[in-house]
Amino acid sequence: MTDLPLPAVRTVADLRAAVRGWRQAGERVAFVPTMGYLHEGHLSLVKLGKQRAQRVVASVFVNPTQFAPGEDFEAYPRDEARDAALLASAGCDLLYAPTVEEMYPQGFATTVWVAEVSAPLDGIARPTHFAGVATVVTKLLMQCLPDVAIFGKKDFQQLLVIKRLARDLDLPVEIVGGPTLRAADGLALSSRNAYLSATERPVAAKLNEALRAAAAALKDGATVEEAEAEGRATLEAAGFARIDYFEVRDADDLQRLGPGPLVGPGRLFAAAVLGKTRLIDNWPV
Amino acid sequence: MTDLPLPAVRTVADLRAAVRGWRQAGERVAFVPTMGYLHEGHLSLVKLGKQRAQRVVASVFVNPTQFAPGEDFEAYPRDEARDAALLASAGCDLLYAPTVEEMYPQGFATTVWVAEVSAPLDGIARPTHFAGVATVVTKLLMQCLPDVAIFGKKDFQQLLVIKRLARDLDLPVEIVGGPTLRAADGLALSSRNAYLSATERPVAAKLNEALRAAAAALKDGATVEEAEAEGRATLEAAGFARIDYFEVRDADDLQRLGPGPLVGPGRLFAAAVLGKTRLIDNWPV
Repeated sequence: MTDLPLPAVRTVADLRAAVRGWRQAGERVAFVPTMGYLHEGHLSLVKLGKQRAQRVVASVFVNPTQFAPGEDFEAYPRDEARDAALLASAGCDLLYAPTVEEMYPQGFATTVWVAEVSAPLDGIARPTHFAGVATVVTKLLMQCLPDVAIFGKKDFQQLLVIKRLARDLDLPVEIVGGPTLRAADGLALSSRNAYLSATERPVAAKLNEALRAAAAALKDGATVEEAEAEGRATLEAAGFARIDYFEVRDADDLQRLGPGPLVGPGRLFAAAVLGKTRLIDNWPV
Repeated sequence: MTDLPLPAVRTVADLRAAVRGWRQAGERVAFVPTMGYLHEGHLSLVKLGKQRAQRVVASVFVNPTQFAPGEDFEAYPRDEARDAALLASAGCDLLYAPTVEEMYPQGFATTVWVAEVSAPLDGIARPTHFAGVATVVTKLLMQCLPDVAIFGKKDFQQLLVIKRLARDLDLPVEIVGGPTLRAADGLALSSRNAYLSATERPVAAKLNEALRAAAAALKDGATVEEAEAEGRATLEAAGFARIDYFEVRDADDLQRLGPGPLVGPGRLFAAAVLGKTRLIDNWPV
């Protein structure tokens, strides 16, 4: 990995040796786990890490166990040289890019499961997804042993799952959510946006537009039922092939809010399929 | 807790502060998790810890989530003052005795599950047991953050579950198994031996006797089926009310061995109920 523009390691032993060296020098370490094919959203998390610690490690690992059969594990975009260049430009100190064999050796048998916040939304659409996420994130955190780990709020439910498991298992790591970065038309930055065709790309922005419209309607006194129905209708009219959910929920425990008008703060969550691309987004209300 | 004969803490924060102080002074830390009502077996683990590290922490926590409804969670013997005196006498540096609320605060939702080695033996007799064990041990290890943690081989399947989860989740802790201590007649030391009546006590020793006899028979060429049937018959004749298992298995992955004579090393496992007391034991073969 000497041809990459920043130091890079592929094994737990090498990762721990690097982090140990920094810690012994009195430096704090931030960690940004990713699935690679990085965009400005990821890089903003690296920069946030740099504000919280002297050193930032980013991992790139497309985790097979959080994809179900038939999902896009094989198709998921990968470009390590490009990722390494972007990480170096953002001030990242180390790339950790383990193999599947390093992460899941022969005989691997352990699962971390977070009930409640894993159940609704993507937990219904992708029933095995959050077990895969919780398990791999626990492993990555234990491999790196950072002071702080940073995850994007674009995957808001994932962030809640990770915060809960870190608290419940007493992992000695602070979990921080970083803001969602968006294109000018509101589309949340996502590696999966690479799947969108030129004709789909402008339609994709309707997902965030519908969330903002629903938030405004709720603020103006619309009921939860009205706002959700209107959001779904907007996405159907825009040409989304399938709407997995368009729902208002509590922003901490993901309990359903309503029926009727909102009485306190919540968060709108949406997932919908456009062509072959599944997009998710969320918005405060 | 100032009336105890060794330093004691009840919160994660106090535990971590103590361990951090030792680590900053360059000392290694060993950890012996227990459910209390300590006997010489536990104390031998503390002494083993003292050989592996400058400091030894022992925890006493009767973990509700590893007991099923109808098992002996409420009846499980507890005596903190006696435990503290024994730990102090064995050279233990710190007692960690958290409350149930400290371990499982409101909203707790995470489970660690180890497939395969959790499935047979006690996994059949006590289907929710090892999820409770794996979860609480992960928590305890993350709370204490020791260099090494020591568990008794009397609970051999539990030791395998813990070794597997520590490896699979990359927990930065070495897991060590300590030898089983036994009474003169072979009965493995166990806190649950306190349940045995004066008439049951000599019968209880038949459990270990049957395991040794089966190991000898296998060495002499008996088939796995013959050795297991003979062991069960011995326990039935001795007056055990229920035999949960009497089986030869692989000592690493707990796969079934046989049929026919043994071709390599294995381990004999037995669990049986005498009166109201469930006893387990195991023996190399």
